[in-house]
Amino acid sequence: MTKTNAGNFFEDFSIAQTIEHATPRTLTNGDITLYSALFGSRFAVHSSAAFANAIGYPSRPLDDLLVFHTVFGKTVPDVSLNAIANLGYAECRFLRPVYEGDTLSARSQVIGLKQNSNGKTGVVYVRTTGLNQDGEAVLEYVRWVMVRKRDENSPAPEPVVPDLAEAVSPDDLGSAVPPLKLHAYETTLAGAPHRWDDYETGERIDHIDGVTVEEAEHMTAARMFQNTAKVHFNQFAEAQGRFGRRIIYGGHVISQARALSFNGLANAFHVAAINSGRHTAPLFAGGTIFAWSKVTDKAQIPGRSDIGALRIVTTATKDLPGTGFPTRDGGDTADNIILELDYWVALPR
Amino acid sequence: MTKTNAGNFFEDFSIAQTIEHATPRTLTNGDITLYSALFGSRFAVHSSAAFANAIGYPSRPLDDLLVFHTVFGKTVPDVSLNAIANLGYAECRFLRPVYEGDTLSARSQVIGLKQNSNGKTGVVYVRTTGLNQDGEAVLEYVRWVMVRKRDENSPAPEPVVPDLAEAVSPDDLGSAVPPLKLHAYETTLAGAPHRWDDYETGERIDHIDGVTVEEAEHMTAARMFQNTAKVHFNQFAEAQGRFGRRIIYGGHVISQARALSFNGLANAFHVAAINSGRHTAPLFAGGTIFAWSKVTDKAQIPGRSDIGALRIVTTATKDLPGTGFPTRDGGDTADNIILELDYWVALPR
Amino acid sequence: MTKTNAGNFFEDFSIAQTIEHATPRTLTNGDITLYSALFGSRFAVHSSAAFANAIGYPSRPLDDLLVFHTVFGKTVPDVSLNAIANLGYAECRFLRPVYEGDTLSARSQVIGLKQNSNGKTGVVYVRTTGLNQDGEAVLEYVRWVMVRKRDENSPAPEPVVPDLAEAVSPDDLGSAVPPLKLHAYETTLAGAPHRWDDYETGERIDHIDGVTVEEAEHMTAARMFQNTAKVHFNQFAEAQGRFGRRIIYGGHVISQARALSFNGLANAFHVAAINSGRHTAPLFAGGTIFAWSKVTDKAQIPGRSDIGALRIVTTATKDLPGTGFPTRDGGDTADNIILELDYWVALPR
Repeated sequence: MTKTNAGNFFEDFSIAQTIEHATPRTLTNGDITLYSALFGSRFAVHSSAAFANAIGYPSRPLDDLLVFHTVFGKTVPDVSLNAIANLGYAECRFLRPVYEGDTLSARSQVIGLKQNSNGKTGVVYVRTTGLNQDGEAVLEYVRWVMVRKRDENSPAPEPVVPDLAEAVSPDDLGSAVPPLKLHAYETTLAGAPHRWDDYETGERIDHIDGVTVEEAEHMTAARMFQNTAKVHFNQFAEAQGRFGRRIIYGGHVISQARALSFNGLANAFHVAAINSGRHTAPLFAGGTIFAWSKVTDKAQIPGRSDIGALRIVTTATKDLPGTGFPTRDGGDTADNIILELDYWVALPR
Repeated sequence: MTKTNAGNFFEDFSIAQTIEHATPRTLTNGDITLYSALFGSRFAVHSSAAFANAIGYPSRPLDDLLVFHTVFGKTVPDVSLNAIANLGYAECRFLRPVYEGDTLSARSQVIGLKQNSNGKTGVVYVRTTGLNQDGEAVLEYVRWVMVRKRDENSPAPEPVVPDLAEAVSPDDLGSAVPPLKLHAYETTLAGAPHRWDDYETGERIDHIDGVTVEEAEHMTAARMFQNTAKVHFNQFAEAQGRFGRRIIYGGHVISQARALSFNGLANAFHVAAINSGRHTAPLFAGGTIFAWSKVTDKAQIPGRSDIGALRIVTTATKDLPGTGFPTRDGGDTADNIILELDYWVALPR
Repeated sequence: MTKTNAGNFFEDFSIAQTIEHATPRTLTNGDITLYSALFGSRFAVHSSAAFANAIGYPSRPLDDLLVFHTVFGKTVPDVSLNAIANLGYAECRFLRPVYEGDTLSARSQVIGLKQNSNGKTGVVYVRTTGLNQDGEAVLEYVRWVMVRKRDENSPAPEPVVPDLAEAVSPDDLGSAVPPLKLHAYETTLAGAPHRWDDYETGERIDHIDGVTVEEAEHMTAARMFQNTAKVHFNQFAEAQGRFGRRIIYGGHVISQARALSFNGLANAFHVAAINSGRHTAPLFAGGTIFAWSKVTDKAQIPGRSDIGALRIVTTATKDLPGTGFPTRDGGDTADNIILELDYWVALPR
């Protein structure tokens, strides 16, 4: 019996199965710095302990997406090592702040299984919970991936497709943000005057800047997240694969687009939920990421007069500025769209 | 009205205008490690808490240039996003030590404005102060940049060119260094026996080693400093620009040259002031940085018997060893000179 | 007299000579993160403070190889700046755990000298000790390097070749591991069920995954270790050298192979000793590292019922998967073997 993990195949999953993922990870100031240096995030709450303390955090909270990627990374060896594609995310909520020194672990439950008609692959749906060292949930999300079958002749399971919310309800946002001392929130330090009230549904924002990604950068980031997906790291194997290239972790694009969104959403300091996310095309090293966002909804958060929520769809592109707000319906440039991310952010009111 | 920052143009600046820059930044052990890993600095005071404590620091001070770049980075979105060139620095003094856990912010005042004769651009002079979380100044410097006008037809302001000191006076050095316990300063651990007394005015030192810079490295460094200047990051845009390449942040060259200068100046642990700095040619990824230094002055620091100051001009080159002490007057190799940095360092006596 | 260090030549070494190396280095959470992000290590003891505390460590210990490289790096300016080749390691023992905040320094003693028959070079053997801020030894190892003579006509010293152990005795293992609370060691979190008892002498394990190395990565790692060997950094000089390329620090291969070995040796959380190591071929950027291991011995550690030792030989390759357990006797692929590392690891029983 081999001692190496070759990853799970479609047959290895069953409905209600629970997986405790390996390698808990303590996140520290080292992670804050490296995450910042890889993506260039500038939200003041994550950048400055003094700013975070002034508005009511006991210490500066870790960037929500650093938390997401850390939890996600743990699931890869069990869930997606044999994945062909990461198909989607839903019902992702950030439940509790994570601080320097916290240790994160992850647990997943299989909530859906559906063999594809080709008999070679199937879709696996898991609900993953990120936990801190006290066993408290800090993050929860559903993702679904297409996974290879070990044996094409093995029988198909009864199909179960979970009923997933189109979006997280505003009622369920905000638990990762302590009550804020609004008077201490200095928009000058935060980088822009625009608070929740200043945004309108339908508004579109070009985040202007573009950032080129290098092989060393996306591999370093994925390793920081302990994400072991082979396609990101092994040029020897990928040279013989679909693209001939290493594929950049989709989460890298999410984090880069989020960092770019600072220019236009500087006070949207907290990702409160991810409603859905689609990696519509792969990104390779040398590509330049741009992003633009549309405000698709605006909601009060029950019980909170300090923060309000905006629902945002951020579109990330490669080698295509966001100036004209390009979409996948956009003819020639449809293939330049690499990410559509639908999420809620919290801003001070 | 747009919510994105397109940067200030020449017309947006006025004499005595004060700008509070965004995104305060807490510097931690993570920054110390990453800075060290990107530049390879080996000065014992910054590398070892035990060494720093032994000689009288409450904890190891952050590298002066890490402090400089962090403060500088904050000014970019307001001062130099539309800059064509970073023309110079003057009167840069390190006023107070910065330790792990300190949060830095920045404030600038416009002290000079002069439209260029072409009517398209102008020179903006700002005096920038870096502040810690207690509002204490840790750094002060003047820089001047050439900035585009928004509208060529807008009227020129009354020209004001500040009167800047040719060099910081030795009387103004040393406030960032606590009184040292000289007997505890172990030159063996520090890497060389040469103290202040061992250097002579006129002495030239080739720092020997060369270090090649990769795209991933300079972009990671600039992001760590939250420097958002577009030319460093966006290959898609730069491919159509002057050089067809991303340009490496000039401060990257300063830090690399300073790290190289350890070999010959191992006890010059503190950059006490920068008298002037010129980026005489751009550097691109793949280039190899070398450096050599000349001691141009030697001064006692009033009230300090523990440390003395050397005025140094460090010349950094690309793809040209420092062996022959090359200068911009050097014929064929003049274009290989990328930096001339005139600064004061402090050494134990 | 020059102030720069051009490195020692063969004539500069004498038997029993002791060298105190420069630049003590405080290791922090920043180093833990960056090391992890550069190599992708997933051993739970190093990754999670909660896991480490639960089993009896006062805080999470630093990765043994991070300690090794940090100590090694300090010796380079004195021992191997003029080295032609790093020939071997022996008798390497990890003596005491190293924690966040510890400051490491290094001291070496020359224990062997042998001029080569060509009269141009000689072999220098040093025993190096890594010390913490309290002067306690945390690491000890012997290495030998081939060093250039300054002058071919200088007389050869009396040859002294130290008598080195073929392997560290199991009696000498384990002092860097506190007594473990075995009941708290959760193999699910650690990533695999296999404990010491589950391995057999003779067993071979393919670690499956491959990781491509970029220039920015190996240079960043070497600088983190303050390793100044010129061949890793200076493309301008190396373009004219043997290979026309920068050579990746051999220790980079060791750390990458060790990180890959997690897949098959997930509970082998501690490198207790290195018996020998040979860098059989150079690695260059763009190469993909694979690894496989053979269990060559199995030993109880006297006085320890909590942990046992496995002697492992890990073979690392470039651009050659470990599937067929390739060796240097392997015909066509012999040149793909880049490392043979013979070491002891400790596992929970």
